[in-house]
Order: sequence, then C-alpha cells, then structure tokens
Amino acid sequence: MTHTYEDAPALDVADPLAAFRDRFVIDDDLVAYLDGNSLGRLPEATLERLTAFVREEWGGRLIRGWAESWVDLPVAVGDQLGAALLGAAAGQTVVADSTSVNIYKLLHAAAGLRADRDEIVVDATNFPTDRYLVESVAAARGLTVRWLEPDLVENVTADVLSAALGERTAVVLLSHVDYRSGTLLDLPGLTAAVHAAGAVVVWDLCHSAGVVPIGLDAADVDFAVGCTYKYVNAGPGAPAYVYVAARHLAAAAQPVAGWWSAADLFAMADTYEASPTIRRMLSGTPAVPGVIAVQEGVRLVAEAGIDAIRAKSEALTAYAIELLDAAGLEIVTPREPALRGSHVTVRHPDARGVTAQLVERGVVPDFREPDLIRLGLSPLTTSFAELAAATRILAEVASPIG
Amino acid sequence: MTHTYEDAPALDVADPLAAFRDRFVIDDDLVAYLDGNSLGRLPEATLERLTAFVREEWGGRLIRGWAESWVDLPVAVGDQLGAALLGAAAGQTVVADSTSVNIYKLLHAAAGLRADRDEIVVDATNFPTDRYLVESVAAARGLTVRWLEPDLVENVTADVLSAALGERTAVVLLSHVDYRSGTLLDLPGLTAAVHAAGAVVVWDLCHSAGVVPIGLDAADVDFAVGCTYKYVNAGPGAPAYVYVAARHLAAAAQPVAGWWSAADLFAMADTYEASPTIRRMLSGTPAVPGVIAVQEGVRLVAEAGIDAIRAKSEALTAYAIELLDAAGLEIVTPREPALRGSHVTVRHPDARGVTAQLVERGVVPDFREPDLIRLGLSPLTTSFAELAAATRILAEVASPIG
Repeated sequence: MTHTYEDAPALDVADPLAAFRDRFVIDDDLVAYLDGNSLGRLPEATLERLTAFVREEWGGRLIRGWAESWVDLPVAVGDQLGAALLGAAAGQTVVADSTSVNIYKLLHAAAGLRADRDEIVVDATNFPTDRYLVESVAAARGLTVRWLEPDLVENVTADVLSAALGERTAVVLLSHVDYRSGTLLDLPGLTAAVHAAGAVVVWDLCHSAGVVPIGLDAADVDFAVGCTYKYVNAGPGAPAYVYVAARHLAAAAQPVAGWWSAADLFAMADTYEASPTIRRMLSGTPAVPGVIAVQEGVRLVAEAGIDAIRAKSEALTAYAIELLDAAGLEIVTPREPALRGSHVTVRHPDARGVTAQLVERGVVPDFREPDLIRLGLSPLTTSFAELAAATRILAEVASPIG
Repeated sequence: MTHTYEDAPALDVADPLAAFRDRFVIDDDLVAYLDGNSLGRLPEATLERLTAFVREEWGGRLIRGWAESWVDLPVAVGDQLGAALLGAAAGQTVVADSTSVNIYKLLHAAAGLRADRDEIVVDATNFPTDRYLVESVAAARGLTVRWLEPDLVENVTADVLSAALGERTAVVLLSHVDYRSGTLLDLPGLTAAVHAAGAVVVWDLCHSAGVVPIGLDAADVDFAVGCTYKYVNAGPGAPAYVYVAARHLAAAAQPVAGWWSAADLFAMADTYEASPTIRRMLSGTPAVPGVIAVQEGVRLVAEAGIDAIRAKSEALTAYAIELLDAAGLEIVTPREPALRGSHVTVRHPDARGVTAQLVERGVVPDFREPDLIRLGLSPLTTSFAELAAATRILAEVASPIG
C-alpha cells in the first residue's frame, strides 16, 4: 500500500513515539524542521538541567563541583551513551572534544597498532573532516592514503573495500551512514573484512548513532567516534565521544596527551603516564555543561529505546520516499530500509534555489553541494504530519506547474 | 604602613571595582572563595545569556543559528578577548577547544616554523599538561626536550633561559604566571631572548590572562594559549583560545586539520586547504554555549578595564602577604608586586590537612602537592573582607595556639 499526504494524521496516531515530540521545545515559526540530522531540537529537560547546572552547580558549588561529580562525568556519560546507543559495554566510551579532534586521536592510535603497515584507507565520499584528518595523520606518519571511489548511493560495499585491502593496510576509516546519500554501510561485514586483512577500523557514527542500533562490541569494532548534536540532541557544538575496544585500551596511544589523559590527574607528576582506562582518550578539561547536555539527550534515546527509534525512522524514511516518488522527484537514498539511515536525499539541478524557497515557506531541509537536498528525519521529534507538509511544499517548489 | 584584619572594610570602601562583585551569583555557603584562579564565579549576565541562548537561539533558530551568527563567534569573541585581555590586534585570536588541545596545535605549528632545529625548551616547574604535551610533540617530531630547572619562586629568569638557548632551539614554551608560586615571568624580556636565539615562543597565559595586562603584539610574541575558566569566569570546561601573530599566520600549520580549519568551511572540498586566517587554528564544530560564556566573561573584564583589575590584584596580594606575614606563615610568592600574578601561595608541612580544615570552616583555597596552599584572588569578585576572614581562619588552623 502506498501512502499519501492524507495518511499523515493516522500515521501520527499510530506512532508509539509520538508523545516524545512534546518533550522538546517547539515554538518556532516553522512548518517543518527536517534538519535534526544537522542540529537536533532542544529537549525541555536539557533546558531545565542546563539552567539548574549553571545556577546551582557552577554558581553554588564552584570548584567543589569537580570533586563532587564533574570529574567523572565524561566516563559516566560515555558509559550511558555506549549502553543506550552503541552496544558498548562500560569502560570503552568517553565524552570529549569535537568529532574532528577525536578522529585525529583515533587515527593516530589505530595507526600505532599497525606500525608495520603503511596505508590508510578512506572513501572519497566521506565527510570532509574525516578526509582532511586522514591526509594530515598520513602525512605526519609517512603513510599513504588509499582512496576508495565508491558510487554515491551504493557507497562502500564489501567488494569496493576488499579490492583496496591488503598487507599494507594499517587503518580503515569509514562513516556508518553517508552524510549525503544516507546510505547505511554494513558495519559488521566491513569490520570483519578489515580484520581479515589484518588491519583495524575506525567508524564515524555521526549520522547513525541515536537513530540506528549499533553493536560495536558484537561486531568486534576497534575504534569509533561520533557527535552528539544530531540525533542525540545535545546542542550546537556539544562534545563528541570516543569508543576504544577494551582489548586495545592498553596499547592505544593518542598524541594529544594532556593532563586529563594521565594516570593520575591531580598528581602533577614529573613524567607522563597514560591512564590505563578509557580516560587516556581525554586531553584537556571537559566542557561540563556540554557533557550534561549529552547526558540528557542520551537519557531520551534510552527511554524511547533505540529499536523503537529505528522502527519509526524506517517508517518515516519509507513515507518520505513514497511521497517523493509520487511527486516525481529523484531520490538518491537506497530504497531498501536496511541500507539507509534516517535522512532521505533528493537530487535537483537547482537544489540551492529550491532549498532557499523551502526556507522561505517555513521548511528547513539541508542543502549539500552541488545538487542535493537532505530531509533529515529525527524520530523523537519529526511527525508524519510535519514530513507530509514539507514534502507537499517541496513538490510544489521543485516541480512548478507550468 | 602595614594593614591588619581590621582594615578590610575600609579597603573595600575604597575599592573602585567593589561593585563588580554584585554582578556575580554569590549565594553559596562560603566564608571565602579563594579559588577563582581555578574556577571563576558565575556572572549574573552569563546565567541570563546562556539560558536565553539555549531557549531562544538553539531552541528557536535551530540550524539557522549557524549562518545567522554562531559560525563567526569563535573569531569575533577571539578578537574581543584579544583586545580586552591580550593586547592583540584583531585577526590573531580565536576561541577553540581546550588549553591542552591548543598547546598541542601550537607546539606543532611553532616547531614547523623552525624545522631546521631540534630542541624544545620547557621548564620543569611548568604545569603538567604543558610538560606532557611537549614530551608528546617532541617524540612525534624527533626533537629533544631541554628541561629548565629553575627555582620555584624565582622561576624562569633571563639567566636561566639564556643558558639553555642556542642554535638548536626551535621552540620555547613558558607559562606567564607559575601555577604554584604565582611568580610572574618577564614576558617581553624572555620573548626577546628567545628571538635573539632565533627560536619562537609559545606563552601559556592560563594564570595571567584577565588579571595581568598582556601586550602580546607589543612584545612581538609568536604564539599564545590560555583558558577562560579562571579569571575570565566562563565556567567549568569553557573553551580556550589561541593567539598566532599575524606574521606567522600564513606558515603556521597545525595538524588537527578538521573542516573548521579549512579555507571554505562549507565547500566540502576534495582536498584540504587551510584557511589563510586565524580560523586555521580551529578543528571541529565550536562549543557555541561555551563561546558565549567566554564573550560574557570578556565583556566584564573589558568593562572593568585590565589596568584597574591589575591594580586591585596587586592590592589584594599585598594585603594577603601582610596578613600572612603577621601570622608567621611561610610565603613562596614573590614579594615584589611586579614579580607576581594574582595568587599568593603558602607553604605548610601539612598543607593537605590545613586545606581540609579550611574547607570545613567555609574557606575554599587550593591545595597543591605536596605542601602548598594557594589563595587565589580574583579582583572582580574577591573582597578585602573575604580575604581577611579567610586569612584569619588560615592563621588559626595553620598555627594552633598550644
């Protein structure tokens, strides 16, 4: 059965997560916000918690707050995020820095585990910061970058990857969901392929964590990184996180070896010794309000449950594809639910102009050079009615009657 | 004339900055907070601005906030901080990441400017994160660390430094104010000495910025870094800042080359090209609420004026020294005002126990291994009465009648 615009109210009524939308601040001037895959909405609880934190903890506890609770937050919230979002047992995830800084640390740590090999593999379709950092780390370590050139929609398949793997491969960096097409890669399968070649993998989870179940432990993943301002709804520039498999902790050395990564934070030791725990992935003083916003965002995902979120995400993306198909628009996102994340991307020759017109009419999507319009569907906040309204306007704007 | 405890009220009445204390949230249970040199108090304006930012900008503008204003904040606030605190003309300062991450970037950038030399000089009295990062960067680049071993109180003098400088010196990393003794180094003189040896200098301003006037441009400083949670009062884990002299911008290459450091942030370019501006020192997405808290903190320093702040700081430290002398306590901070920053440090064989007793009696100082108690005096919030009350209790606790 194909759905139409008119089905939206019934789909919302049947949606078991519909009530979560009321847990967010929604008082803007928009018809539809379809950019939760760039910046998620503000949870009411986060607004309250941040205000209370600043007023009572910073303002009232002052320096005592560190010893009382803040010092352990990066690992505590990392564990919570690992359990609710990543399929990661405790002690392997820490909240810290930005995604870019963390990719840098992990690429060095990963390359250090395979110091007898000299290639880093990354796909040319990957997000710029991932590619730039591969280039930087490769240059610093005297490694060669081996570029995958996959099709945008199929993205990195087992065939594409395997052709590049070999005895020289030290590290592979992949994004779980492609930021343009929305293609969801086969994380367990590709991880196994990397391991079969004797290399280690770093997964960038920015566009999947919080909306796609991720079994990092089950898939034997080595390293992972991701942001929290998309589907974790932790706010603009909220801190990112790092996952290091327990088996690598002792040997994973990262170079931004600040005092927070040391074995004894307050010993003020003469010589550096890395923490034996996941704290070794920290560098400087954590952004405490940011970590707290991550905690609130993780709490909402945990409460809803990642499987329920994924189910709604699949329903939303399916509905979007049906409506876009009916409007005759070109879709570059895979049609098989198991092969896509939570955004659907339209290709249009005047994508920039169409995006501008959408924004004028109260619909916020995301334009990506040169000809892509992303519709980000964030299950905790996106309603079917919102999606239908946005798609109707998109159909009008992109295919004018003439 | 020597002052006593009884002079405190009159000193407060005569203090031209006394009213600034009312601009901060002060409703804790404390007799005295003398740890503003670790974590500054919460400005009322910051509480209001952060709450409004989260509610209205993140919650209401959502992704549109980036284009409307957030994207330029790191440089805009960097310029404001540079002008009010650092003596830095626009275009050389950016707010980003943590102090540790920034030291890492600057050490690489600095060493890259002197690639024909093979030594990094740092003092063994420096803060651990500075020393650890020197070790890490030196190891990665094949450089030798040349350790200065200065006296704690005199710290790095021209003589101590000059004996270590030579044709092999690439980079010197120094802290403007020693975190233990409070000693203020001769920034212009030592910078000139480094330059005379053909090397470049990185100054860590964590314990001086916001309380000591710093003429980075006037002293021809190459690079500087500092935090904002001490005398800038921007909150726990607020972002740090980086200064790169305009003459070095084109050549200063840092390795954490994420998308925010690229020439065109949103071009999603195939290959990396560093921004020609100070933005090249960025890496990933900035922590927007943190940058806003920095802006509010900088605004207060600018309004009070750094010279007035320094004058009060000198008066506070002088008063502390007089009271501590009268109590017969050992002081390791220089007695010459021009040679100290804004904390006064007492040495006591049971510093840890004394600190614990002070905290029990509502006085928060800062214990430093193994035998030091720091009294941090933050001119915008520390009153003379508060200092007198704290010192009186310290005298009782540290020298019991018996």
